[in-house]
Amino acid sequence: MKKVAVIMGSDSDLPVLEGCFRTLKNLNIPYEAHVYSAHRTPLEAAAFAKSARDNGFGVIIAAAGKAAHLAGALAAQSILPVIGIPVKASALDGLDALLSTVQMPGGIPVATVAINGSENAALLAAQIIALGDDGLASRLLAMRDEMHHSVLAKDAALNV
Amino acid sequence: MKKVAVIMGSDSDLPVLEGCFRTLKNLNIPYEAHVYSAHRTPLEAAAFAKSARDNGFGVIIAAAGKAAHLAGALAAQSILPVIGIPVKASALDGLDALLSTVQMPGGIPVATVAINGSENAALLAAQIIALGDDGLASRLLAMRDEMHHSVLAKDAALNV
Amino acid sequence: MKKVAVIMGSDSDLPVLEGCFRTLKNLNIPYEAHVYSAHRTPLEAAAFAKSARDNGFGVIIAAAGKAAHLAGALAAQSILPVIGIPVKASALDGLDALLSTVQMPGGIPVATVAINGSENAALLAAQIIALGDDGLASRLLAMRDEMHHSVLAKDAALNV
Amino acid sequence: MKKVAVIMGSDSDLPVLEGCFRTLKNLNIPYEAHVYSAHRTPLEAAAFAKSARDNGFGVIIAAAGKAAHLAGALAAQSILPVIGIPVKASALDGLDALLSTVQMPGGIPVATVAINGSENAALLAAQIIALGDDGLASRLLAMRDEMHHSVLAKDAALNV
Amino acid sequence: MKKVAVIMGSDSDLPVLEGCFRTLKNLNIPYEAHVYSAHRTPLEAAAFAKSARDNGFGVIIAAAGKAAHLAGALAAQSILPVIGIPVKASALDGLDALLSTVQMPGGIPVATVAINGSENAALLAAQIIALGDDGLASRLLAMRDEMHHSVLAKDAALNV
Amino acid sequence: MKKVAVIMGSDSDLPVLEGCFRTLKNLNIPYEAHVYSAHRTPLEAAAFAKSARDNGFGVIIAAAGKAAHLAGALAAQSILPVIGIPVKASALDGLDALLSTVQMPGGIPVATVAINGSENAALLAAQIIALGDDGLASRLLAMRDEMHHSVLAKDAALNV
Amino acid sequence: MKKVAVIMGSDSDLPVLEGCFRTLKNLNIPYEAHVYSAHRTPLEAAAFAKSARDNGFGVIIAAAGKAAHLAGALAAQSILPVIGIPVKASALDGLDALLSTVQMPGGIPVATVAINGSENAALLAAQIIALGDDGLASRLLAMRDEMHHSVLAKDAALNV
Amino acid sequence: MKKVAVIMGSDSDLPVLEGCFRTLKNLNIPYEAHVYSAHRTPLEAAAFAKSARDNGFGVIIAAAGKAAHLAGALAAQSILPVIGIPVKASALDGLDALLSTVQMPGGIPVATVAINGSENAALLAAQIIALGDDGLASRLLAMRDEMHHSVLAKDAALNV
Repeated sequence: MKKVAVIMGSDSDLPVLEGCFRTLKNLNIPYEAHVYSAHRTPLEAAAFAKSARDNGFGVIIAAAGKAAHLAGALAAQSILPVIGIPVKASALDGLDALLSTVQMPGGIPVATVAINGSENAALLAAQIIALGDDGLASRLLAMRDEMHHSVLAKDAALNV
Repeated sequence: MKKVAVIMGSDSDLPVLEGCFRTLKNLNIPYEAHVYSAHRTPLEAAAFAKSARDNGFGVIIAAAGKAAHLAGALAAQSILPVIGIPVKASALDGLDALLSTVQMPGGIPVATVAINGSENAALLAAQIIALGDDGLASRLLAMRDEMHHSVLAKDAALNV
Repeated sequence: MKKVAVIMGSDSDLPVLEGCFRTLKNLNIPYEAHVYSAHRTPLEAAAFAKSARDNGFGVIIAAAGKAAHLAGALAAQSILPVIGIPVKASALDGLDALLSTVQMPGGIPVATVAINGSENAALLAAQIIALGDDGLASRLLAMRDEMHHSVLAKDAALNV
Repeated sequence: MKKVAVIMGSDSDLPVLEGCFRTLKNLNIPYEAHVYSAHRTPLEAAAFAKSARDNGFGVIIAAAGKAAHLAGALAAQSILPVIGIPVKASALDGLDALLSTVQMPGGIPVATVAINGSENAALLAAQIIALGDDGLASRLLAMRDEMHHSVLAKDAALNV
Repeated sequence: MKKVAVIMGSDSDLPVLEGCFRTLKNLNIPYEAHVYSAHRTPLEAAAFAKSARDNGFGVIIAAAGKAAHLAGALAAQSILPVIGIPVKASALDGLDALLSTVQMPGGIPVATVAINGSENAALLAAQIIALGDDGLASRLLAMRDEMHHSVLAKDAALNV
Repeated sequence: MKKVAVIMGSDSDLPVLEGCFRTLKNLNIPYEAHVYSAHRTPLEAAAFAKSARDNGFGVIIAAAGKAAHLAGALAAQSILPVIGIPVKASALDGLDALLSTVQMPGGIPVATVAINGSENAALLAAQIIALGDDGLASRLLAMRDEMHHSVLAKDAALNV
Repeated sequence: MKKVAVIMGSDSDLPVLEGCFRTLKNLNIPYEAHVYSAHRTPLEAAAFAKSARDNGFGVIIAAAGKAAHLAGALAAQSILPVIGIPVKASALDGLDALLSTVQMPGGIPVATVAINGSENAALLAAQIIALGDDGLASRLLAMRDEMHHSVLAKDAALNV
Repeated sequence: MKKVAVIMGSDSDLPVLEGCFRTLKNLNIPYEAHVYSAHRTPLEAAAFAKSARDNGFGVIIAAAGKAAHLAGALAAQSILPVIGIPVKASALDGLDALLSTVQMPGGIPVATVAINGSENAALLAAQIIALGDDGLASRLLAMRDEMHHSVLAKDAALNV
């Protein structure tokens, strides 16, 4: 199965990524996590992205806060789908990171999820990889089913 | 090759989608376009999404303005990756559509691109499908190359 | 008397709805509460709304946060008035939920109240039902009177 | 049938209200339109609202821009449901009117629709009155049907 | 000397007004404080404003949060200068109150100060009254002097 | 009668100030207009404000766009009431000017009116000066009366 | 004298940069203009910045719109001061470019000017270079003088 | 070496400036810190800026919150580069200070850094001074190197 790369701009983003890691594990998706900053280690970030496809990765997830350039910088170096997680990490509560991630100019897309939405980033990566992996597709369908029943159970509990 | 579904909430979104259609055509990606409203035709929208995977689609692109629920409504019915294009269509210049599309709750991701960013939606769809299609990957790499040279040509023209 | 349906997108919205439930009880308005997610249980949400009028409901109240599609999704399935409560539940403090709830496209209205304004949602439901129920109208007038005197009492207390 | 009152803060709001008037006429709902300003004619506005229920009105629609106090001022004087239309009428494109209309304090709700969403205000008023008028309910259901088919027709036209 | 009226929409605004009361006291300006809600006691609020000039008031200060209509409602009933204090009292951190207070339509001005800026509201009232009161003008000049020296003292302390 | 000073940061603000000049003229209030920039002519701006009270002025009106410091800079030099008009003059449509004008720190108030609200700035100045001028107060009351009747006439015209 | 580099992300930014070029010319500051995109030509952009100091540049000016990463990407590769001009180029009117440019994480500063503020970018570059160039400092002082007199002339014209 | 002036509008801004002072010390850059308010001590602020260049300063850093005029007021008096730090100090979380600092009108630039970005202000000052000081340039390059290795070390630690 193709691997997922999870790149964070700073190790202070680790708590936000817990939901991402947990979801990837639950779905048995192999992943690698790295700290690469678009500004402090631009060459390493670019090199990683440039070789990611050849190294067996299928999706890159990038999490960054403030003027969040990381996802865009990686996307500029690869034709792999890049998923951007805007991190709430400044006085502006993540609105800066959201706009810096999603408002990409024409030519280089970033698939942006909600502010701090790291669980959804993992699910989106899984849905992309599942296009070529029926086993993963089955696990995703089962997870949807589980979510569905969990809501119904909560509804039932409310009306006991 | 897997097909791309391009769903718009209203036929008034057609001009915004021109860049999307052109890009898909340039990349030889088969696609189908539909008008389905999350609010006016919720059943048809849901039915389309529910059967999209079985019908040979690999990615769903959804464009909508204002309280843009379309991408989320489709994503709720399918494990295909759903790409959301927030359309500038109200007094709030698309900020409402952006937040309605990207701030999805945990469990159901939408891969959001820039406001009116329909060309990037097509490229993102292509990058996803290219994971399982080396010919498309080559065309994407060539397109990147072309963009790259076009910028260099503009730079050269500036300094003649 | 017609019943009020109070639908929440997640049971984490329960604390926000306390003011709603208390107000409905104070006014002797029968209600049913449910957890239905527009994204995790779209079919159940739609089915509930579709049959709500036949099942004796007069108003639907829907509370949801982030990309709050719940009120709109219910409104798409019923001609009952649907009241939307945007819930503060993300980094954006409910602005996302407000715009996702209020900026509905033409054809399917949602009667939106303030962020976390669940008490007002209950009062609005009561005012709607009171159009056909003079007893409830009297109770609403009495409640207004009480509010009025409570403010005057506070004013008097300030100037003792 | 109960009448709808359509109050505007200024006659410059008339163009915004065209969709409202047309929809009320299409649904055969009797209405009266007035220009009353919360600030220039506060007494007349209050007097109208205070007597509206006794005068046969079932719903009040109020449209105002900028610091849009009109809907709230009318709501303070009546237990009729009051629907607020924030009008785009300033440098801030209606965001000021939206927040001034929707963020009502506890006790006095305003059912807010989208910026300039006057057609939806009329539909919401109709849905409220239809609770006690089966003929109107039928007309609303027919209108929904028509919208539904119109979208399907547009979809079909797209794929000819 | 003319009196200042300090009106708050709710007694929960009292803590915000402490700076206002303290400043008025320091400047020996007589004032009266009241709780009047634009929505819960609209008649009392209007009556107070209507008679304020005859009752010896020179300035009205109004503090309110959320859809803050109070200052505008008082201004509509009096030609006394009305100073509005937007109170931070909702999920939107006072931005709603600021826009509801400052974006008044032509004809009825409200002199708006910063969110929670109750000390400045008192100073502005003082500056207005001082136009006709040389003693107060002297006290204001002395207070400015004191502020000036306090900053210089802090600067000196920094560089010891 | 005390004079009003109308200071603009740039002569490009002249069109915005037309409503201000017309209103002052209608009310027979003497005024002087000046172009002084807080940044290009800081000394002249400060000198004007410093001597304004001695020169017979009662109120200073200041209009500026973008990072609108003018009103605050004048207020820092005088205990006269200073009214700030945020001018819509940038990509941000006046939101920058509004916040730069209204969010003054404690000690130096600016009485802020709506973006481009120059007519209201003139009325506010008039209401302040009218505290010591019964003739002006009568003219203001007459103007209110006229506004009142103008709205009623529009209402009547609507219902002919 | 050290040169200024003016880098734009796209040749569509040329009109915004006119004020920049004119100001640099007026001050006799040598400059070079280039089109380099952070996303379409990341390597060329990085290479330019990396060698800029050795190539005789003293300041880099970067103009870009939307998710404006260009200034930050250049700043990551050089210890030259980098000035960022956020360009108004999207539905969000430059707010996205402003936040993407100014909210840089710790370690890599970008000196941000106003949205479309290209004249000020040139002046800031001049002020920086003038630290080591007394002739340029004199020209800057003369330019300030001229601005000063131009405002006074406009003030005089107003009061003829 | 040229000195850096660090001016704060209030001593309550001291905690925000810690990163600035520490960075200047680490780089062996001489600096002076002052408390000068644009509004409470406008003359002292102006006088300081006017003479700063003659007094051996090369850069002025100014930190202020709310309607943050300080940086602009200093910039109006000097052709030294002025760096503005918007301070988070109000209900609006620093957005007001950011716009008040960065949206300067043409003619008087302020080099704005992120909200509370005082470390970057120091680095930007250092980069400016380093244009004429090769020793400082070497220390800046070494600091960049250190940052670079620190990120790589964190990446390595993640993957042990």
